[in-house]
Amino acid sequence: MLYQLSEKIFALEAQGKKITKLNLGEPDWRPSEKVAEAARSALALGKDRYASAQGELALMEKIAEIHGCKPENVVVTLGSKWAIYATIALTLKQGENAVTFSPNWPAYASMYRQAGGTLKTVELKQENNFTLDLEQLEKTIDEKTRLIILNNPSNPTSRAFSDKEEQAVLDIANKNRLRVLFDDAYRDLLFKPRKERPIGEYFTACSFSKTFGMTGWRAGYLIAGKDFVKKMVAFNQITLTNVPQFVQAGALEALEEKDTIARQARKTCEERAELAQRILGRKFNVPMPDAGFYVFPKINSDAIEFAKLLLKKGIAITPGQAFGNYPENIRISLTANLEELKMALEKIVEAKIQK
Amino acid sequence: MLYQLSEKIFALEAQGKKITKLNLGEPDWRPSEKVAEAARSALALGKDRYASAQGELALMEKIAEIHGCKPENVVVTLGSKWAIYATIALTLKQGENAVTFSPNWPAYASMYRQAGGTLKTVELKQENNFTLDLEQLEKTIDEKTRLIILNNPSNPTSRAFSDKEEQAVLDIANKNRLRVLFDDAYRDLLFKPRKERPIGEYFTACSFSKTFGMTGWRAGYLIAGKDFVKKMVAFNQITLTNVPQFVQAGALEALEEKDTIARQARKTCEERAELAQRILGRKFNVPMPDAGFYVFPKINSDAIEFAKLLLKKGIAITPGQAFGNYPENIRISLTANLEELKMALEKIVEAKIQK
Repeated sequence: MLYQLSEKIFALEAQGKKITKLNLGEPDWRPSEKVAEAARSALALGKDRYASAQGELALMEKIAEIHGCKPENVVVTLGSKWAIYATIALTLKQGENAVTFSPNWPAYASMYRQAGGTLKTVELKQENNFTLDLEQLEKTIDEKTRLIILNNPSNPTSRAFSDKEEQAVLDIANKNRLRVLFDDAYRDLLFKPRKERPIGEYFTACSFSKTFGMTGWRAGYLIAGKDFVKKMVAFNQITLTNVPQFVQAGALEALEEKDTIARQARKTCEERAELAQRILGRKFNVPMPDAGFYVFPKINSDAIEFAKLLLKKGIAITPGQAFGNYPENIRISLTANLEELKMALEKIVEAKIQK
Repeated sequence: MLYQLSEKIFALEAQGKKITKLNLGEPDWRPSEKVAEAARSALALGKDRYASAQGELALMEKIAEIHGCKPENVVVTLGSKWAIYATIALTLKQGENAVTFSPNWPAYASMYRQAGGTLKTVELKQENNFTLDLEQLEKTIDEKTRLIILNNPSNPTSRAFSDKEEQAVLDIANKNRLRVLFDDAYRDLLFKPRKERPIGEYFTACSFSKTFGMTGWRAGYLIAGKDFVKKMVAFNQITLTNVPQFVQAGALEALEEKDTIARQARKTCEERAELAQRILGRKFNVPMPDAGFYVFPKINSDAIEFAKLLLKKGIAITPGQAFGNYPENIRISLTANLEELKMALEKIVEAKIQK
């Protein structure tokens, strides 16, 4: 379904039609010139040899400083996606499962299927403002569950769960002898920034793609106990070898500038979120996002039909079905400038399925 | 054992000791300046977005042209290592196995273990000049075998198997309804260059690391049937997303210059191989390599002890135990200039374990 839709988008673009693409998890801002320059100059210096499967020491030290851990707790990965996939592959035996809350990033389920397990989901409700359902979490855990994944803030809702809620999830995990994987891809885009989570007995996956706009660079990292880091390094050695040193040089420069870059990215996101809430709010129920660049309004008609309709009007969005049992929600990525976004959001509000 | 040895190398280097490192599979030549410039300029042009999990079209077309196939038969990967790992992960069910010939690259076995299977090996003999043992191959295949891996030319022996021998392996595979994976990492370094294998019902994994010296870039590709390519693209989507576009720009430029670069690399390898044969041949049985930068002489004493002894003399090599049941062979990587290499090889010939 999703693939058919994206094929349609490609076909329309090939016909020369202008599409406002609000369907991707890719911010429209770019890495800073200093980041690009750091990579180019590392390449010029010959930083392109086989390298550590854990990461370059300078980058690991910087990450450790930010997270209040040691370099031995850090492994640099090809995007946070690889950090998550590898964590799943290394914690799962055939037939086991993990639990996460839906709506959720569809890759988790595909990763589990590929690794020979399954992903179970606890459905959060729009009418409860997607509040964590801890009771249902406990009921969903079974004797084959090994991991709880918490994406906070969440893709697609942009809802953030509090430190207290995170602790409640950790308590349930401890009680059931499970591990927790925090997917922090959007954490630096929280409108009310938080300190890094103190280091503990869980996995934290982080990305350079969103805050720094370094999507195609494929850089991320995992924070974990040192024994698990060793396992992941061994896994990297037989799969990827290393993240290119010149990519890591860019990532290091991004972290050096993190405060400035993250502040600007948050400001951009917040302005767009306010605009989206103002315009979409005229017709739909749109809670104000806590972070990032997605809104996930309920549109009270079939989301796939609505997506098709919008595409005819030159706007691509993602129907809620992609994220679980949300057939009347749509995910809009606020990844265009305010002017283009305003026009697109107005069209979304005006669009009406003919019955 | 190997890791202890490499830790020792790091420790010695940290103490300021100069080590001639002939223990790595990393050539000492560099990508051409045009390759580096292609990557830098792609980055400057903003070629750093989320991109196709199959590869950039221009690169796939160039690869298809070289191999006489279609772009739909190509998937660009993070080194040939990922091409091999992903092929294993996608062809193996729990408890199944593959067969390869030893001595062999140790990563194959680790990959199979990680994927829940096993690697069986057919031991080739020094006294037969490591000729393929097809009879033993047939005996080793069992009802759980799914794949035959043929690394040709071979790491660590640098022995090339003829087209006829490859066909015999394919015939055995067909008879037993198995697939064959050709690991072609060193093929472009054949001293007598061959045409690309015609496209067929098998997998071919290729690397940019060796011929082009692009080790840390992590670029390679797989040639396969289009349905399998689709499976691998889906696997890439949930693990790596894409090879960075600016890395692929460098890889494309490397292929544009392939004839020149490969000719130079072969010449360098052949000169070094002749030198090695001449010097080592005074004491050891060293068949002339057919390709690449390894020699694998039998030294008639324990290879681990010999490696320790050489390390004291400032030379790192890899003991034969790393590649299978070869306790009296050593792999020497001819990855230093002729002068440094000559000195190191003389020392290797002179070294004697005190009994």
